[in-house]
Amino acid sequence: MKQTAQDIAELVDGELRGDGSQILGSVASLRNAGPHDLTYAEDKFHGEVKQSRAGCVIVGSGEFAGRTIIVVKNPKLAFARAAQVLMIAENEARAVHPSAIVADDAAIGKRVKVGAGAVIESGVTIGDNSIVEAGCFVGRFSRIGEGCTIHPRVVIYHDVEIGNRVIVHAGAVIGADGFGYVRDRTELVKFPQAGRVVIEDDVEIGANTCIDRGSLETTIIRRGVKLDNLVQVAHNVQIGENTLIAAQTGISGSCSIGPESMIGGQVGMGEQAELGPGTIIGGQGGVLKGKRVKGGEVLFGTPVRPLKDFLAEQAHLARLPRISGELRRLRREWDELKKKLTKSFDV
Amino acid sequence: MKQTAQDIAELVDGELRGDGSQILGSVASLRNAGPHDLTYAEDKFHGEVKQSRAGCVIVGSGEFAGRTIIVVKNPKLAFARAAQVLMIAENEARAVHPSAIVADDAAIGKRVKVGAGAVIESGVTIGDNSIVEAGCFVGRFSRIGEGCTIHPRVVIYHDVEIGNRVIVHAGAVIGADGFGYVRDRTELVKFPQAGRVVIEDDVEIGANTCIDRGSLETTIIRRGVKLDNLVQVAHNVQIGENTLIAAQTGISGSCSIGPESMIGGQVGMGEQAELGPGTIIGGQGGVLKGKRVKGGEVLFGTPVRPLKDFLAEQAHLARLPRISGELRRLRREWDELKKKLTKSFDV
Amino acid sequence: MKQTAQDIAELVDGELRGDGSQILGSVASLRNAGPHDLTYAEDKFHGEVKQSRAGCVIVGSGEFAGRTIIVVKNPKLAFARAAQVLMIAENEARAVHPSAIVADDAAIGKRVKVGAGAVIESGVTIGDNSIVEAGCFVGRFSRIGEGCTIHPRVVIYHDVEIGNRVIVHAGAVIGADGFGYVRDRTELVKFPQAGRVVIEDDVEIGANTCIDRGSLETTIIRRGVKLDNLVQVAHNVQIGENTLIAAQTGISGSCSIGPESMIGGQVGMGEQAELGPGTIIGGQGGVLKGKRVKGGEVLFGTPVRPLKDFLAEQAHLARLPRISGELRRLRREWDELKKKLTKSFDV
Repeated sequence: MKQTAQDIAELVDGELRGDGSQILGSVASLRNAGPHDLTYAEDKFHGEVKQSRAGCVIVGSGEFAGRTIIVVKNPKLAFARAAQVLMIAENEARAVHPSAIVADDAAIGKRVKVGAGAVIESGVTIGDNSIVEAGCFVGRFSRIGEGCTIHPRVVIYHDVEIGNRVIVHAGAVIGADGFGYVRDRTELVKFPQAGRVVIEDDVEIGANTCIDRGSLETTIIRRGVKLDNLVQVAHNVQIGENTLIAAQTGISGSCSIGPESMIGGQVGMGEQAELGPGTIIGGQGGVLKGKRVKGGEVLFGTPVRPLKDFLAEQAHLARLPRISGELRRLRREWDELKKKLTKSFDV
Repeated sequence: MKQTAQDIAELVDGELRGDGSQILGSVASLRNAGPHDLTYAEDKFHGEVKQSRAGCVIVGSGEFAGRTIIVVKNPKLAFARAAQVLMIAENEARAVHPSAIVADDAAIGKRVKVGAGAVIESGVTIGDNSIVEAGCFVGRFSRIGEGCTIHPRVVIYHDVEIGNRVIVHAGAVIGADGFGYVRDRTELVKFPQAGRVVIEDDVEIGANTCIDRGSLETTIIRRGVKLDNLVQVAHNVQIGENTLIAAQTGISGSCSIGPESMIGGQVGMGEQAELGPGTIIGGQGGVLKGKRVKGGEVLFGTPVRPLKDFLAEQAHLARLPRISGELRRLRREWDELKKKLTKSFDV
Repeated sequence: MKQTAQDIAELVDGELRGDGSQILGSVASLRNAGPHDLTYAEDKFHGEVKQSRAGCVIVGSGEFAGRTIIVVKNPKLAFARAAQVLMIAENEARAVHPSAIVADDAAIGKRVKVGAGAVIESGVTIGDNSIVEAGCFVGRFSRIGEGCTIHPRVVIYHDVEIGNRVIVHAGAVIGADGFGYVRDRTELVKFPQAGRVVIEDDVEIGANTCIDRGSLETTIIRRGVKLDNLVQVAHNVQIGENTLIAAQTGISGSCSIGPESMIGGQVGMGEQAELGPGTIIGGQGGVLKGKRVKGGEVLFGTPVRPLKDFLAEQAHLARLPRISGELRRLRREWDELKKKLTKSFDV
């Protein structure tokens, strides 16, 4: 949505210097930006501001003669906030596409887009200003809040509850059956997966990520959580507010993760593990089944251990050849000594 | 499908105590269950049975005055079996949706549902009582047996054979080309992926899981296998009966896994590895290319090794700092002794 | 596409021996091949050529009386090249399916197939001879080159550029938003993902693989790259020509991988890591954030290290129990000696 530099300065509570009437319509990097693009520069890139063709640059301080700039405390944050406004599509068609299959009793809000071929089943609610893109499937009695964007080909099973301003990327699957069986001799009998999924406000879910429904309880993704692509969230998992989980991480059944945690890519968590608030786990870390982690720790490795232990261990591992050699030397010297002592003193 | 408590008692071959006419329509946890829900309680939760509002509780033993209970040997297993009956949808529409694109020569059985926008190509067979949900794609000459549930947006390529009572969750892809190339200097020439996929009866396949077709042979998933979400099964793999594979595990080309094995999440198997019957591999384990594992072993780590070796190694690793310190002390004492000996005895 | 043995011999520049008029219509393994199948045999399988029912066998040398064979230097490569011709579908319908939703201003080339229910948005270009299968979504202003095959249910977001002869398997998602946020106290503010994706000629992309668009730059997959299933490619990544990446590998933001590299399955790369040309990384390897690797190395483990270091470390690890034992023995002998020395000589 087009804005003037002045509008943006007000939006980010910054100080405008230069031409406040400059029209901005999109964002770009300092290097690629053109006259209608907003960009930003961290201090170390101030040298490049002069050459930039950007219509407006958000910076933290400094003078840039002849350039339109906005000065704020945190330029990257201000740029991110401004970009959200600039990237709102204008004049976008908001209607139910004639090829969409919408149940008669579905409740579709105002200014809702339902894309081509999307299927909205019986009892579904979709809040105002939400977009459900082409080819999505929304199962019986699921609810989508206001201002959501559900990208193409997302599958939402029945009885899933999604809050407001939630973004779900293409191919994600929400509410599939969890993985639970009871062995009867060799046969595996399916345990019922009859629970629900609740996804709170402001969550973003990556492409082809899977969030399973609870077995008899509810899988809960709290407000502000961000999940990257190809993440697996099993049944009955709870993820606390504003936690970030990078791509290809897998969270087993009944785990809980505290708020404001940061989980790296390809991390694996065994069943019923619990991470306290603000836990940080490095990429490919492995959390054993049932493990309890207090809040605020930085953990690495498989099984995960505090970063400083992990680094110490890496250092010790690197020293292993030397340890081995030193031990051999000691043994040799020692055997020689014993021989001498035996000869000389008959010890 | 609604049942009386008496019906359920007969189904699970249990002993009914209380009101056999109680109508049950669904399942829930002991804590959440209402008067029309069936639930179960392991011995350690017997204290909670009294407060539960459940219509009927399956237990292993005990007296619960005023409650309708069913006594069986294995309550969880009986509950799972009963749930399968209670969770059958009643009066579900079973028809080919008018927006589905079904080839003239496809053979569609009785009481089959083909959902909105599904594409059924030429030569396809779908057996009686199967459900192919909205947006699925079933390629040329593929066959789906009886009583299957193919959830929305599943893609089944051509010439794939699926048995009876198979469940495939949303977004799964069955029969895509395997990953095979022949290098011609720098260029990578595609090796033909002309084989098939066979999936036997009672298999369940998780959301967004991928099973590649054979290159010149057949990828085979045997009866009763359960695959979790986001699993990768490469070309020419064979997985034995009733094996469980947890989320995000990857099985490389031409591997074989014996029956009744349990493979944890995020396990990786290199090409042509072979696991014997009843192999158990812990999460994130790595099986080297070409590795042979006899049946019945419990393996952990990368590369996988027997659990007891893995634990011993972990213990040794934890002791490394102490080993290092002890070695330094020995060296120091030794050097001191040498000095003394040299001085005193001229050794 | 049917060919005679003579046609194939000319195609692969080989020497035909036997019946050049033999009609070949497909490929199969030496064991499964029938009279209209082409197959190949490496030297070690020459013993099986005689029993094979194949219409024609490509070999590296030798005499096979009564069989139609083609002699070339590299039988597997010749077979792969021949298979590409034999596997071209004949008489395939090439049209826009009436149920496809194609924007008025989309530019659709000649002999293009757009499958049932596919959605082609405004400003899209699709080159001659390309196939966009059922249920695909191609977003605004994206371009697909000539001779491409986009399998069912692929989602291509807006402003994605795809070259010629690119193959994309079912469920892949190209151009979804990268994973970038700026923390404002506890809140996570979305950083704009306004960049593009460029996929050059002859790339193949596996099922359910995700390639994110750049944030402010471009994600680039160079000519001839092959990505397996369930691979994650984050924003701003660059992958060099003819590089192979196996299943479930994850490449974090702003990484670059040199040409002709081979990355195993389930490898993880931290942000901004750079691999030189011809790098080989074994399965489950982990590359730390910001790591630089010169070209031509073979790396294993987490964090990755040269294969010989990795193997040495494995050997040392296996020796740890012995090291531990030896150290205890030394200590014991040493303590005994000290006692004796003290007693005898008052050292």
